[in-house]
Amino acid sequence: MEAKGVSSAGDDAALEPSRPRTFIKDIVRGATEELVGRKVVVGGWVKTGREQGRGSFAFLELNDGSCLANLQVIVDAAVHPLTQLVPTGTCVLVEGELKKPPEGAKQSVELKVESVLEVGTVDPAKYPLPKTRKGFTLEFLRDFGHLRARTNTISAVARIRDELAYATHTFFRKNGFRYVHTPIITTSDCEGAGEMFQVTTLFSKAEKEEKELKQNPRPSETDIEAAKLLVKEKGETVSQLKSSKASEEEISASVSELIKAKESLSRLEERFKLKAGIPQKDGKIDYAGDFFGRQAFLTVSGQLQVETYACALGNVYTFGPTFRAENSHTTRHLAEFWMVEPEIAFANLEDDMNYAESYVKFLCQWLLDNCIEDMEFLKTFDEAAIERLKLVSSSPFERISYTKAVQLLKNVTDKEFAIEVEWGIDLASEHERYLTEVLFKKPVIVYNYPKGIKAFYMKLNDDQKTVAAMDVLVPKVGELIGGSQREERLDVLVKRIKESGLPLEPYEWYLDLRRYGTVKHSGFGLGFERMILFATGMENIRDVIPFPRYPGRADL
Amino acid sequence: MEAKGVSSAGDDAALEPSRPRTFIKDIVRGATEELVGRKVVVGGWVKTGREQGRGSFAFLELNDGSCLANLQVIVDAAVHPLTQLVPTGTCVLVEGELKKPPEGAKQSVELKVESVLEVGTVDPAKYPLPKTRKGFTLEFLRDFGHLRARTNTISAVARIRDELAYATHTFFRKNGFRYVHTPIITTSDCEGAGEMFQVTTLFSKAEKEEKELKQNPRPSETDIEAAKLLVKEKGETVSQLKSSKASEEEISASVSELIKAKESLSRLEERFKLKAGIPQKDGKIDYAGDFFGRQAFLTVSGQLQVETYACALGNVYTFGPTFRAENSHTTRHLAEFWMVEPEIAFANLEDDMNYAESYVKFLCQWLLDNCIEDMEFLKTFDEAAIERLKLVSSSPFERISYTKAVQLLKNVTDKEFAIEVEWGIDLASEHERYLTEVLFKKPVIVYNYPKGIKAFYMKLNDDQKTVAAMDVLVPKVGELIGGSQREERLDVLVKRIKESGLPLEPYEWYLDLRRYGTVKHSGFGLGFERMILFATGMENIRDVIPFPRYPGRADL
Repeated sequence: MEAKGVSSAGDDAALEPSRPRTFIKDIVRGATEELVGRKVVVGGWVKTGREQGRGSFAFLELNDGSCLANLQVIVDAAVHPLTQLVPTGTCVLVEGELKKPPEGAKQSVELKVESVLEVGTVDPAKYPLPKTRKGFTLEFLRDFGHLRARTNTISAVARIRDELAYATHTFFRKNGFRYVHTPIITTSDCEGAGEMFQVTTLFSKAEKEEKELKQNPRPSETDIEAAKLLVKEKGETVSQLKSSKASEEEISASVSELIKAKESLSRLEERFKLKAGIPQKDGKIDYAGDFFGRQAFLTVSGQLQVETYACALGNVYTFGPTFRAENSHTTRHLAEFWMVEPEIAFANLEDDMNYAESYVKFLCQWLLDNCIEDMEFLKTFDEAAIERLKLVSSSPFERISYTKAVQLLKNVTDKEFAIEVEWGIDLASEHERYLTEVLFKKPVIVYNYPKGIKAFYMKLNDDQKTVAAMDVLVPKVGELIGGSQREERLDVLVKRIKESGLPLEPYEWYLDLRRYGTVKHSGFGLGFERMILFATGMENIRDVIPFPRYPGRADL
Repeated sequence: MEAKGVSSAGDDAALEPSRPRTFIKDIVRGATEELVGRKVVVGGWVKTGREQGRGSFAFLELNDGSCLANLQVIVDAAVHPLTQLVPTGTCVLVEGELKKPPEGAKQSVELKVESVLEVGTVDPAKYPLPKTRKGFTLEFLRDFGHLRARTNTISAVARIRDELAYATHTFFRKNGFRYVHTPIITTSDCEGAGEMFQVTTLFSKAEKEEKELKQNPRPSETDIEAAKLLVKEKGETVSQLKSSKASEEEISASVSELIKAKESLSRLEERFKLKAGIPQKDGKIDYAGDFFGRQAFLTVSGQLQVETYACALGNVYTFGPTFRAENSHTTRHLAEFWMVEPEIAFANLEDDMNYAESYVKFLCQWLLDNCIEDMEFLKTFDEAAIERLKLVSSSPFERISYTKAVQLLKNVTDKEFAIEVEWGIDLASEHERYLTEVLFKKPVIVYNYPKGIKAFYMKLNDDQKTVAAMDVLVPKVGELIGGSQREERLDVLVKRIKESGLPLEPYEWYLDLRRYGTVKHSGFGLGFERMILFATGMENIRDVIPFPRYPGRADL
């Protein structure tokens, strides 16, 4: 960022001038000879601080989140009270000169502070993540979602997540894909699978109405009767005046009183019918009064919608949050997670597998090229993580049909599976992991699954038994990607929807894509958090998303 | 993508081989001399097709969405029945040779088809967007959300949207920012503003229970009485057997019958209490049984949450969907829209303005560098769009305090405002647009707003009257960005929350950021669709997001 002065327009309010800071990553990764002697402003949080030389100066290990490494900072007692600076978690913005440390020091450069510009103090007795408490478990940290990014582990994961997101956009851009924002709120159910969150304003509406009714109560039946009586009386007055040939003025005055009484009655009757609470119709909830005039949900996948863009722009992808209201408490499931879903026109299953393999390889290579420091640190969780990235980025994925996979698994003698393998079953995690971890020791793409276990939109193969689906299985997490060629034939698709017990009407727009200029196309979905688990070797999906949502928990 | 054969593992299922296609953009933007003579496979949708030479061949204008321009394709009647190919909307995958067109043709290269590999036909009598119907209005197209990306306008907007998204990630990456996925489902209300969508599983749960109750009705009081009687009888039997000193076997058998009867009674009593419908407690909806065990909403902003990461990683941003349940039907509001929200540690208001200005300039320059063909096409909607991008990318933004802006507006003599300007009011769109469009004729940043009209988290200035907020105003749309320095002082922040009439408890985590190592920090939010409106000159926000959501509408 270039510094920029206040505009010359002659403002009356003074602004504190901008004071650009140098990122610690640019210091610890820089060339010592170019850095020594430079004056810099550096800001960050103290990882560890200790007073030295009988309190005459202090060493601070300062981290600003730009990288894993800390900068060693030296402050003299004459510059600032040291006790304020040394507690773990203290925030400082300091100005000083970069120096060459004494011979034998592990850092290549350190900062001698000339002035402390800002301090955000910490009371170590109250700080939830003090230095004295060693080795917080990841589970403990989940209760401090607003502070845990200050730990090495969670910040390393955050940087890796950021890199994988940018790598994703870069990969697809390079391959001619356009990013499409599919909707989060949807009235379509992608797989007819249920387990969706509903989006509504009915509760807040009911609450508002209830409040209003309290302030301004519903009229009683007596009120209504009185109002009816008044209408009757006013009506009689009009008749009397008319029959007694009263003046036009008198009659018109009494008529206008009658109209007022009738209006008042109709207002009362309207309010009498008011019923706070969720509106019902024919014993069911009436969504006509909901925000979208119908039931609306959080998306479980952007696939069907992004297909409409693939059938116009060719190569597209969506990358956004998706939701499942499953009561699942495993280390692999979240209620809110991010998914990458490319969709490719003029592509068959082979193309789909090629793109999936290239994409995963690209991500692994990207981490090796851009995140090696964080990856090295995360070795504490999984010694093999970096080797896995190297293996995956460099060796071709195994590709076998489902039928072949079943044959291979049936022949396994060195392991007893909890679920017996038979052609037709959905492969369980134990089978998938055996294929990728034991049998092939590398990623495996299994394709052509039995139609009975896959979604209606997958292309029916000529054998009439299997569909052109494929799953990418990787060591550590099992299924990383699920994809398929889509059924582009109108008649077959209609048949498959009916066979799946789904109604046709909600899919009319989807069928239109096959009615008008249909195209062979394919796509897949990659669970972004699963990719991070796979890459980093972390065990629990709740630790690789900034703010995990699962049954009973949605902190912040 | 490199082509890749089926693995050598000896699969039993044959796969259709991959047949890579060439994007039309690489042909129409390529060098003629390098292209002529090349064999290519091209796929796309027919924009216009016409038979020529008494039906001996056809010209097809083919578009594949990779760019606005079409490729001219020539098919001989001997190669494929022409009537199947010429209707607008037909999808074809063709193989052929690139040729130099006759002298004087406007295209630099054309494709002579040797074989038609795939056709997705269209019945022109049924196709909702046929060639014969000229000039669809954008409003008409909104009813065909699944097909409208096939029009030049919507596909141009989609490409521009994609470019702006990538430019956004690139700008922040260049400036050392990390992308953070803030949560969509939240239990915090960013501004205490209300108007949020609620996320729930209570309706589906109630529905499931109701269904279950229908299949398996609640027991009647008679059932309960009968079960109670049975328990009593079985109890008496046990007593009788005991007092008559019956055998242990007999007694134990009768005890076990008693236990069974008691269990059956308790099951019946449990089911008797079952009540389908939304659970209530103390006359209010009981959210303890909802998915997250409490009320949950769709986020209106990721700011508060992303601040937790700024206070750890330094420079961060979020880019994701946000929601407002406002009953707003304007051309500037959506119920679901995307927002870009950077948050910067060690940054004051001046830094914030610098980043905001650099970011907007970067986006404008990016479009000039990468999207000029689509921008030229969209001139039909706004002649001045490209000039505006040039102006904004090259000239410094005006920066004036709110107080100064009010002074300037009060002195305006050539325009009567609907709302009179007084110090303390929130500037209306008419005022904002006057400043940027008439007075300065370029983007204007207004800063230091009265605290009464701004959110609690904005830093209170020393004058105690204003806060360190800033809005970026641009021609065509008015407010494009809103931002502020955040209040980093714990005591002041607590006071401001209380003054705003908000409870402290939900903000304890937010206050923790000020308790432990607090840091001066700033951030802003850019409405992504507003940026697209500003850049393209499109008038209605519903046309610049793929699937617009607004009151009464959530198609697909």
